[in-house]
Amino acid sequence: MAVIVYMTAPNPEEAERIGRTLVERRLAACVNVLGSIRSIYHWAGDIQTETETAFIAKTTDALVPALTEAVLELHPYEVPCVATLPITGGSAAFLGWIDEVTRKEP
Amino acid sequence: MAVIVYMTAPNPEEAERIGRTLVERRLAACVNVLGSIRSIYHWAGDIQTETETAFIAKTTDALVPALTEAVLELHPYEVPCVATLPITGGSAAFLGWIDEVTRKEP
Amino acid sequence: MAVIVYMTAPNPEEAERIGRTLVERRLAACVNVLGSIRSIYHWAGDIQTETETAFIAKTTDALVPALTEAVLELHPYEVPCVATLPITGGSAAFLGWIDEVTRKEP
Repeated sequence: MAVIVYMTAPNPEEAERIGRTLVERRLAACVNVLGSIRSIYHWAGDIQTETETAFIAKTTDALVPALTEAVLELHPYEVPCVATLPITGGSAAFLGWIDEVTRKEP
Repeated sequence: MAVIVYMTAPNPEEAERIGRTLVERRLAACVNVLGSIRSIYHWAGDIQTETETAFIAKTTDALVPALTEAVLELHPYEVPCVATLPITGGSAAFLGWIDEVTRKEP
Repeated sequence: MAVIVYMTAPNPEEAERIGRTLVERRLAACVNVLGSIRSIYHWAGDIQTETETAFIAKTTDALVPALTEAVLELHPYEVPCVATLPITGGSAAFLGWIDEVTRKEP
């Protein structure tokens, strides 16, 4: 099954660096760097507000563990956001392409 | 069940043209053109980087095949991204409205 | 289970006000204000086009009813978009953090 993995990074350059590596390693068929976001979150007992960059990867659910591991390796944060959303339908040709251009074994 | 369909297009004008047609045909209750994105992906044996526009449609899972068909008809790409994400909860009034303003039969 | 709740608001200030309140009330671990969007939708028998702001909240599925109620209380719209997307995998540390910093009982 294909999935969309939602992630954030400190800035567009980091999002593109991490995203490009995922595509180069065929852990993702495609990465979309969505752009600048304002993040509000709990951290160290306080509410923080930061500017970040959101990006998504389109891949297969079988590759999510290996993709997550690669993001943890590449990412500057201690606990980066890596959240998988299941794809349940859409263009069969596109979903087939995701399968075609990504690694078969993690 | 309601769904969010994630798509990309070459630019905002194409995203809005396709999105508006989906709403006019009542294949979607609402389309959000999310804005400019940087896409990194495998194509023809190489890694490509392009600027695109992401957009989403809110519709029912029953309409996904007809919506996908319409996107394939309207879209300039050979294999456009059409990826369906299931909605599992939220505002009953909003989810009811999606059902109300979209076609009953595809 | 963790979820991403997709919402829209009239502008970035309203999105951030609502988002911050959700985080302050521990109804969400984190909110990302994604930025300006163009919305095309059916309303009062016509097709409307508006500029809005999209934002998402990362929380637990158990908190979705209470989060939705809070959004309906805080939001200027009569029927705001509150749509829940299930998270099925990703970083265990991140998903554990969502659970850790959000309310245990709604």
